[in-house]
Amino acid sequence: MKHSIGVDIGGTKIQFATVDPEGRIVHRHLIPTEAHLGPKQVMDKVMIGIDALASLYPSLNEIEGIGIGSAGQINFRTGAVEFAGDTMPGWTGTEIRRDVEQRFRKPVYVDNDVNVIAVAEKVFGAGRNYNSFVCLALGTGLGGAIVEAGQLVRGYFGGAGELGHVSVDFNGPRCGSCGNNGCIELYASGTGIARLGSIALEGSSAEHGWEANSRSIIQAWLQGEPLAAEVMDQVIRALGAAIAGFIHMFNPEAVIIGGGVSETGRVFFERLDQAVQARTSTAMYKACKLLPAYVGADAGVIGAAAQIWYHGDF
Amino acid sequence: MKHSIGVDIGGTKIQFATVDPEGRIVHRHLIPTEAHLGPKQVMDKVMIGIDALASLYPSLNEIEGIGIGSAGQINFRTGAVEFAGDTMPGWTGTEIRRDVEQRFRKPVYVDNDVNVIAVAEKVFGAGRNYNSFVCLALGTGLGGAIVEAGQLVRGYFGGAGELGHVSVDFNGPRCGSCGNNGCIELYASGTGIARLGSIALEGSSAEHGWEANSRSIIQAWLQGEPLAAEVMDQVIRALGAAIAGFIHMFNPEAVIIGGGVSETGRVFFERLDQAVQARTSTAMYKACKLLPAYVGADAGVIGAAAQIWYHGDF
Repeated sequence: MKHSIGVDIGGTKIQFATVDPEGRIVHRHLIPTEAHLGPKQVMDKVMIGIDALASLYPSLNEIEGIGIGSAGQINFRTGAVEFAGDTMPGWTGTEIRRDVEQRFRKPVYVDNDVNVIAVAEKVFGAGRNYNSFVCLALGTGLGGAIVEAGQLVRGYFGGAGELGHVSVDFNGPRCGSCGNNGCIELYASGTGIARLGSIALEGSSAEHGWEANSRSIIQAWLQGEPLAAEVMDQVIRALGAAIAGFIHMFNPEAVIIGGGVSETGRVFFERLDQAVQARTSTAMYKACKLLPAYVGADAGVIGAAAQIWYHGDF
Repeated sequence: MKHSIGVDIGGTKIQFATVDPEGRIVHRHLIPTEAHLGPKQVMDKVMIGIDALASLYPSLNEIEGIGIGSAGQINFRTGAVEFAGDTMPGWTGTEIRRDVEQRFRKPVYVDNDVNVIAVAEKVFGAGRNYNSFVCLALGTGLGGAIVEAGQLVRGYFGGAGELGHVSVDFNGPRCGSCGNNGCIELYASGTGIARLGSIALEGSSAEHGWEANSRSIIQAWLQGEPLAAEVMDQVIRALGAAIAGFIHMFNPEAVIIGGGVSETGRVFFERLDQAVQARTSTAMYKACKLLPAYVGADAGVIGAAAQIWYHGDF
């Protein structure tokens, strides 16, 4: 089988790769998104990036198709952006598939950036043996995807899977991106951990040796700093309650967790697993494994490309 | 087409009916569950109840099959009870389908009591025109079912849809039935409203003219009693936050709400709709209708019977 081109459009960078049918990256490069320049400039960069990869092949006939994952709510049927928040100004309404198809005359699939991670995990990774699983991406924000009966749960227009915008505190702070109160993204994402860290530091007059960003807080926690431990205790309890809810709703065989926050290693997973177990109905907890993402940092671009062979129906 | 027999096994009563293919009840009766007598006695009652309806027909050849909805987590593949809580002591492990099939030699389908309500709403009711919707049953407890791409979301062993056991307060009280903290069932079910009412009454020395049960609290709220209004404000905020989360997760075309608590009428729906709108991402809110259940109090027994024609794949 031919290679396909994957594009992963995020708020800060756009990753491009040609991927072979076994999920291996053959060629790759990266362009800063500079999303503030607006959707036309971003789409120009997407075209340039695809062109650069295509030019490594004798002709476009060597390429099976182009798969794209993008930040925002994507209508996978039309390949357009249904809604994008502040990280991608003006991105709402962008006709990604139409424009890329017109330019390259190849099959193009577009989906949101976490659905394509679920594709990568299902086809090449931790979800290989499961027909029902939940993917969580704990990055700057908190993204999600749901696979049920071997297919991505998409909902009406493809917006399903916004697991970061589930409330774990209905009296909690209002979420700037959706309007709900106490969204789990406000506790268990990079920005959420930083927010909790900042509140903790404000309430303390002592010196704690860390700053209010997730990397610094997690490092201090792993070294046993008590205030950082209090912050991470709150993160793990909130995330444990949310994951218990996901298990009760979806009765999945696995919850697959990736993204920068989860890459802190075994201690995070062990503590999280305990928190989930304490909060989940026994039969459903026993049926479900908590697993680290397998494909890792390249899952977005690999899954984007893999859409050409598997577009959500495995 | 022939009639089928529906059985709806709840914690307090078992409803039986013969149903025609248009979803109309032809014959019906009701037996108290007396669940404390144990699973053998309950199954005896199920057999007796089915027998009583079958005896109204010249022979069992006139009956297409027997559909059963039961409280608890049901494995729809085996027709056995995976897990049941305190309302049905010893019910876990009961082989409902095996026993009923052996006795009557007819096709038997078994599912949980809210999945069969979703079947009734999809085939005969408010879900008729939708391929993706969420059902909520606000009764003594809070049950749920999810339909995605025209099929019931079942998960690994059929336990999916426990929407009552999603946390809306990770620092909230521990849920006796699942172990999670601040389950939405603790706020927006009959027992949840009673619990909040009881806390409110304890904190007040004045006389308020209502008792700590959901019927009395809702009535006082509709008459403008201030403390009851505070309780119901909390109920509606908690439920609004939970439903906003369901919409973000499933991007449904409709959220269909039934059960005693919702039958208080238009004011409840209007207030809830406002709470949901304020908490939901605009594109997803616009795509989704909040609807009262159509089939009503008989949805359980009608949906149970309808499984014979449509077992979750419409």
